[in-house]
Amino acid sequence: MNTEPTCLFCKIVAGQIPADLVHTDEHVVVFKDINPKAPIHLLVVPREHIENLFTIENQHDQLMAHLMKLLPILAKKMGLDGFRTIINTGKSGGQEVFHLHVHLLGGWNTSPQLF
Amino acid sequence: MNTEPTCLFCKIVAGQIPADLVHTDEHVVVFKDINPKAPIHLLVVPREHIENLFTIENQHDQLMAHLMKLLPILAKKMGLDGFRTIINTGKSGGQEVFHLHVHLLGGWNTSPQLF
Repeated sequence: MNTEPTCLFCKIVAGQIPADLVHTDEHVVVFKDINPKAPIHLLVVPREHIENLFTIENQHDQLMAHLMKLLPILAKKMGLDGFRTIINTGKSGGQEVFHLHVHLLGGWNTSPQLF
Repeated sequence: MNTEPTCLFCKIVAGQIPADLVHTDEHVVVFKDINPKAPIHLLVVPREHIENLFTIENQHDQLMAHLMKLLPILAKKMGLDGFRTIINTGKSGGQEVFHLHVHLLGGWNTSPQLF
């Protein structure tokens, strides 16, 4: 499995940097965002170092399906009956850490705007 | 394949309501959002009527993997070197049309904020 020693999220996956873990399995590590943008703000991070959606390939099909099916399970675990999923791809897409990650946000008192 | 006659997106998939199509294949229909929230704003809509991420099952694995791999292809087709993906699930997650859809947004002059 591809990893990148200097990558922040690879270090969290490896347990070298602590994080507030919510879920782990063979494919992903899930933890609370250290700078939450919503009452609930999780980051779902594949164990494999994949830069972003531009670099996913057929070999990641199972991972992608797992990610999508895991999101509602995580939301329910956090007590949410609705949630927003955001994936930022590339600098001009707002990506800050270049290890694929999925934001799961929720817990607002009112429905969020698209932005 | 499950469809819902009264659903707006099922009607677009069926060609009963016109849309500015960008891509179609056996799994999805992609069109420009009629009320764009970014210079480029596409909606990626499965042909099957799936309410949202709360109702996806193992039978949708191939569709989910296809969706994720299609996003960067669509972004490149629209001339984007970065993009944001948003999926709203449930009313409290900001979902307005209850047929699973993925927002693909981009083309801003500066990187977007998370909200």
